[in-house]
Amino acid sequence: MAKTFNILGFAGSLRKASFNRDLLRAAAELAPAGSKIDVFELEGIPPFNQDLEQSPPDIVKDFKAKVRASDAILIVTPEYNYGVPGVLKNAIDWASRPYGDNAFEGKPVAVMSASIGMLGGARAQYHLRQSFVFLNMYPVNRPEVMVAFADQKFDQNGQLKDEQAKKLIVGLLQTLIAFTEKLKP
Amino acid sequence: MAKTFNILGFAGSLRKASFNRDLLRAAAELAPAGSKIDVFELEGIPPFNQDLEQSPPDIVKDFKAKVRASDAILIVTPEYNYGVPGVLKNAIDWASRPYGDNAFEGKPVAVMSASIGMLGGARAQYHLRQSFVFLNMYPVNRPEVMVAFADQKFDQNGQLKDEQAKKLIVGLLQTLIAFTEKLKP
Amino acid sequence: MAKTFNILGFAGSLRKASFNRDLLRAAAELAPAGSKIDVFELEGIPPFNQDLEQSPPDIVKDFKAKVRASDAILIVTPEYNYGVPGVLKNAIDWASRPYGDNAFEGKPVAVMSASIGMLGGARAQYHLRQSFVFLNMYPVNRPEVMVAFADQKFDQNGQLKDEQAKKLIVGLLQTLIAFTEKLKP
Amino acid sequence: MAKTFNILGFAGSLRKASFNRDLLRAAAELAPAGSKIDVFELEGIPPFNQDLEQSPPDIVKDFKAKVRASDAILIVTPEYNYGVPGVLKNAIDWASRPYGDNAFEGKPVAVMSASIGMLGGARAQYHLRQSFVFLNMYPVNRPEVMVAFADQKFDQNGQLKDEQAKKLIVGLLQTLIAFTEKLKP
Repeated sequence: MAKTFNILGFAGSLRKASFNRDLLRAAAELAPAGSKIDVFELEGIPPFNQDLEQSPPDIVKDFKAKVRASDAILIVTPEYNYGVPGVLKNAIDWASRPYGDNAFEGKPVAVMSASIGMLGGARAQYHLRQSFVFLNMYPVNRPEVMVAFADQKFDQNGQLKDEQAKKLIVGLLQTLIAFTEKLKP
Repeated sequence: MAKTFNILGFAGSLRKASFNRDLLRAAAELAPAGSKIDVFELEGIPPFNQDLEQSPPDIVKDFKAKVRASDAILIVTPEYNYGVPGVLKNAIDWASRPYGDNAFEGKPVAVMSASIGMLGGARAQYHLRQSFVFLNMYPVNRPEVMVAFADQKFDQNGQLKDEQAKKLIVGLLQTLIAFTEKLKP
Repeated sequence: MAKTFNILGFAGSLRKASFNRDLLRAAAELAPAGSKIDVFELEGIPPFNQDLEQSPPDIVKDFKAKVRASDAILIVTPEYNYGVPGVLKNAIDWASRPYGDNAFEGKPVAVMSASIGMLGGARAQYHLRQSFVFLNMYPVNRPEVMVAFADQKFDQNGQLKDEQAKKLIVGLLQTLIAFTEKLKP
Repeated sequence: MAKTFNILGFAGSLRKASFNRDLLRAAAELAPAGSKIDVFELEGIPPFNQDLEQSPPDIVKDFKAKVRASDAILIVTPEYNYGVPGVLKNAIDWASRPYGDNAFEGKPVAVMSASIGMLGGARAQYHLRQSFVFLNMYPVNRPEVMVAFADQKFDQNGQLKDEQAKKLIVGLLQTLIAFTEKLKP
């Protein structure tokens, strides 16, 4: 029996009705056969303080353990002020520290985003990609999933109803899985 | 008697012995005659949650009020994972919200950074500059203050001892003041 | 009688039916009363070679002279490979050299872009903005003019027919003029 | 007998005594056993014109053929105006066109840079990395080779004399080769 392919997913918003959390949930429902997306909630991760990095809070330990146990990472990012939300970057900062104990080391990663604007969060995605260089993560190139005009793409229960977006999500997850298999030692 | 030129400064690190907090303190000591840098400490600003943006915590109200009361802004940024620290971006995210109540609107701004690496925090500076477009802030172009190999530039009491860096800081502050005067209505 | 406000505009494409050249032409037609957009064609500027920068080709001399004589700059950029077209960047590289003879020094600038994709050239705009820091140019923040799905926004004669885009262009030019007035010594 | 690993290298400067061309030559001399770096000179590639993309000049055909025949790509980039030189981007633009005939598709790639400034060309590298997303190229994350203060790192014959830089180059090439092997179908 084949081992399940484990993707750890997290979304960079704490808002209950966040389109990005909805998007992550949509991805979890669309995970290809043989794969599974576990959602980690960033709520409760305090602001990073390097003085505390040697004994991080339990939620950070848990986050790092789950990142490490995963086969690949899925980051769903809102765009705040043309960049990565502080909340999301803060979680990444914790999990990359202390020096020499970067939980993301070598992990394949895919990124998605949603926004109510016409760019669909694109600017946040490219900033994240620059962080991946330092984190030594391996991002998938395409398809890029940028859900623009997000308020028209989800129904009132937060269900993604855009068929084109669903197709792209499936394509992204398939590519992530195939890319991860290639990168395996 | 001329009015004092008020600069609000904040550094994107919570670490006690942070080079970037030292750098901000150095700038405060080097403020040109007629100007003053007030330092705002980001410690205590919780992770941004859009559900709470209509009634933000007191520290955020205070931060926004001080941003608004200032003539110009000075941001001192570490570079975490080739980007802006989550802690710093989170403070900016709070102060820019809710929609239509962006405290940074129209503010002139200067950026400095320090890091122990050879790039001196450059990558974080350019990401911040992209945020300024959305925030409608007016950044000074030069001189760019990027203190590389920071562990060799400060003494054990956190005093900046690099004369070249001091000169650049003074130049940056003078440019910020002159630029602000030009932009005034 | 008030002096005309002179904007030098150039588009980063050599293609005859380029949407970006059409967009620049549309801007020229929409120039606010009292202003004028002169279009400089980049065709004929050879690849930059630093060995030749002390005696540049005539077209480069002409380009630099016109940049210098202008009150402000308008750059219209396609997006090639998620960045600035080589053709456009090459013209900028020539005009910024040799060291100490940067024609763009201190110039206010506005950027527009068009593309057939959903992002409307956004990625090229942010890369250009990073170059402005070194060039010591002063970019307008907003409105951002990014004409997405450009093949649906121009008619067969290359006339912009999108009213929303026209409004944004007028807003951008007005902002550029007002910003330039403020920055004047 | 093992097949030689073929790397196609090109540098984004036309200057005869370019530090970046020197750097590429240094890399060619340091190529690990079993590998070989062929240098392609960009001199002679005209400004890209999309109207001509269906019948590109011979030098472009040759460039694209050599890109395709290579196992991996090595790009050596100067930094002009905080970005990718127009000359380099122009060559990439040609080789990526027409649509559907991108010579770089799927290629693993490494980047190096040199500059006389303290950042060693870093800003150009990150802009190139954004282009790789569209080009569907697979960049190596590290080591990053950014030769700062380049005028002190090469001798009068253009020979790289910095041992640390040499080590990084070897490390980068080894990583590129290993990464390419993993990505192979």
